[in-house]
Amino acid sequence: MGFDPATLKYDAAGLIPCIAQDHASGEVLMMAWMNAASVAQTLASGKVTYWSRSRAAFWVKGESSGHHQRLVELRVDCDRDCLLALVTQEGPACHTNRRSCFYTALRDGEEVVISEPMV
Amino acid sequence: MGFDPATLKYDAAGLIPCIAQDHASGEVLMMAWMNAASVAQTLASGKVTYWSRSRAAFWVKGESSGHHQRLVELRVDCDRDCLLALVTQEGPACHTNRRSCFYTALRDGEEVVISEPMV
Repeated sequence: MGFDPATLKYDAAGLIPCIAQDHASGEVLMMAWMNAASVAQTLASGKVTYWSRSRAAFWVKGESSGHHQRLVELRVDCDRDCLLALVTQEGPACHTNRRSCFYTALRDGEEVVISEPMV
Repeated sequence: MGFDPATLKYDAAGLIPCIAQDHASGEVLMMAWMNAASVAQTLASGKVTYWSRSRAAFWVKGESSGHHQRLVELRVDCDRDCLLALVTQEGPACHTNRRSCFYTALRDGEEVVISEPMV
């Protein structure tokens, strides 16, 4: 009996957050949302596939940018309401062309940009 | 002019997801929710403080369990709708007594428990 994405806990909109972490470096790259169909598609294709809330459509990461996210392993948390995707990320994960979306740190009460766009 | 938690983007319930990552090892420990007040309290106290949706109350991580989460650095993502907390975690982060909540991996279509409770 295999894993069934329907056994995860989704919010009222049918979505579950998924954290993408660089498999090799451990860097947290981004967080985005999946629905049950995109979880299934991610597992079947090996390409991390989110659900775009703004476009209300599947979002195969890298499909338009070329910055693919290949799934290494998908993990489920204890409450079954959050996912962790260990990935191999080609180039930047962030739409600002930075490796990670978490490039703003709070230091001494101020926002500090701690990484620059990749060239 | 300092950082203002009100400038983050919260969902309809006034919440923002916060990923906790072990500062030293890079392990992703858990994901929980914060509201603007708990973001402010986390920054002021250095103790990671979530908002418990089930109890509708502040949740100072470790307050009851003793498994404190000390804030090393808080980061904001590009869309300002997700936080990453780099932390020093005492003992397990998960209520199952495991170091991380993400202890279930999907391998060959099956759920596999990949870590055991700490002793």
